[in-house]
Amino acid sequence: MEEPSLAERDVLTKRESGVTDASPMRLRMEALIKEKQKEIVQAIEQVDGKNFLVDTWDRASGGGGISCVLQEGNVFEKAGVNISVVYGKLPRAAILRMRSDHKALDPDVESLDYFAAGLSVVMHPKNPMAPTVHFNYRYFETANPDGSQNAWWFGGGCDLTPCYLFDEDAIHFHKTIKEACDKHDKAYYPRFKAWCDKYFHNKHRGEARGIGGIFFDDLDETEKDQEQLFSFVQDCLNAFLPQYLPIVNRRKDMPYTEKEKQWQQIRRGRYVEFNLVHDRGTSFGLLTPGARVESILMSLPLEARWQYMHEPEKGSKEERCLNVLKNPQEWV
Amino acid sequence: MEEPSLAERDVLTKRESGVTDASPMRLRMEALIKEKQKEIVQAIEQVDGKNFLVDTWDRASGGGGISCVLQEGNVFEKAGVNISVVYGKLPRAAILRMRSDHKALDPDVESLDYFAAGLSVVMHPKNPMAPTVHFNYRYFETANPDGSQNAWWFGGGCDLTPCYLFDEDAIHFHKTIKEACDKHDKAYYPRFKAWCDKYFHNKHRGEARGIGGIFFDDLDETEKDQEQLFSFVQDCLNAFLPQYLPIVNRRKDMPYTEKEKQWQQIRRGRYVEFNLVHDRGTSFGLLTPGARVESILMSLPLEARWQYMHEPEKGSKEERCLNVLKNPQEWV
Repeated sequence: MEEPSLAERDVLTKRESGVTDASPMRLRMEALIKEKQKEIVQAIEQVDGKNFLVDTWDRASGGGGISCVLQEGNVFEKAGVNISVVYGKLPRAAILRMRSDHKALDPDVESLDYFAAGLSVVMHPKNPMAPTVHFNYRYFETANPDGSQNAWWFGGGCDLTPCYLFDEDAIHFHKTIKEACDKHDKAYYPRFKAWCDKYFHNKHRGEARGIGGIFFDDLDETEKDQEQLFSFVQDCLNAFLPQYLPIVNRRKDMPYTEKEKQWQQIRRGRYVEFNLVHDRGTSFGLLTPGARVESILMSLPLEARWQYMHEPEKGSKEERCLNVLKNPQEWV
Repeated sequence: MEEPSLAERDVLTKRESGVTDASPMRLRMEALIKEKQKEIVQAIEQVDGKNFLVDTWDRASGGGGISCVLQEGNVFEKAGVNISVVYGKLPRAAILRMRSDHKALDPDVESLDYFAAGLSVVMHPKNPMAPTVHFNYRYFETANPDGSQNAWWFGGGCDLTPCYLFDEDAIHFHKTIKEACDKHDKAYYPRFKAWCDKYFHNKHRGEARGIGGIFFDDLDETEKDQEQLFSFVQDCLNAFLPQYLPIVNRRKDMPYTEKEKQWQQIRRGRYVEFNLVHDRGTSFGLLTPGARVESILMSLPLEARWQYMHEPEKGSKEERCLNVLKNPQEWV
């Protein structure tokens, strides 16, 4: 008889013992992101007044996802809150690539079972004064043939993309996530803020996608123990609503002109450029066999615009925003 | 004294003897695409009634470009007719990659001077009944240290992207380019039509970008002699206006609904996906140091839309178009 797969073992564990603090990290992370997805969906529905569409699907090799999308709402042009849980096989080439960051990976096997789970949020408000927000927090694990844990790591981050820059919004967004970081390690915020500025960069334009936040990847036992990192990611997830709700609430009903809406659409074009040209998560997703394309591309705005040689007027609010994107700032 | 660069030699040759049939192919290709750019710009201005914006620029290492863009015209939402002429240095890694297709490339040098010249056209009409059209024809050459020709090849193609499918348009577009191909080699059209269907494919969606045309690359001395291939590319360029003008003229004033306009915007989103995710020319361009980003991205439409889980109605015209994109057809 064949050994049960990691996915089959996990289904069995959940059925027999539920998920507790003593469960494998895979199951605890899955439970956490499901709970956070519900909280965020509820809070955003309250702001918007319209409900999310919920799609649930299973993957043939184990796992699945829940995509919650709110489209053409009152406050949000498009908002997506997605969970995905993947059980798959990592081929040898991918193992060798990943070994540079994770020495625990066994270089002598042909393939490894892996598990990946994450929660991704992208919200594009209608009002050009209200910024787009994004976060993703994820956990990755590989398994030994007997199902025990081989290598594991956490990754994630959050960033804010305004079309019009209100300093108080940028300061609030950064301050809130800095507090979450500081609880765990005073070095985290400066280190992950710089990583974020480097990652969310539209290299071909020489501009940042937005005004940043934090970004981290490959946090494993060489960083801190698993329990401490899980607790850090929990605090990052908990920071999201306090980070973003006050901002969207004070911007969503501001007056704006047709010209300001058009500037927003041009900035949305840049968002599309980053996601399709540079974002590793999007490329990885689109190349994964059997990927759910509509869930990956829910990050794209409802509408975008490419206007040849558009330049903001000298001394305008649009120019000021662009200058900050070209020269990332410290906000706290 | 340092040897003059390829770019400097070419400037000198043009100044001293002009460009004739006896000139190096570089200069003949440059002269051809400049002439064709003028013809096409004039013809499109006549259809639209609005003039193109013309930007001319030089590259520090030699060469330069002319970008002609017509934006928010009467017939065209956005139309670009671009020339670029590049003199540069091909690093060793690029030489080794290209050697698989071109044995004439010397594998034993650290770098090679190269020349590339091409004309690119993308036109997005306003009316959703009028299809988007694209073509690019280009010539590439590497030089020996004494300035003589090392390896060379031609590449290019054209394709049509309708949102609503009129069989007569697809047949006309294919028939016209097939006639240009047949004059040179009866095998060209079937071979390059299949290559086009393969290349302009949104793999992540399992759909073609449009209803195809032709595509070819790396046509060098192992295919036909240089004079014959140049004459073939000339005929392809000459085919463009007869290929496209009758189509846009019969569609540009057709009535359409708001819903049909929205379907066009969704299809424009797919066009953006192909160009930013899959198109080799766009990625190569965006990675080239000192590239003129606005000229590369003039291929993007003025506006695009991403609507989560959009599905055309059963039996609708939109569904018929999508079915053909999923199953490329023979048109002649």
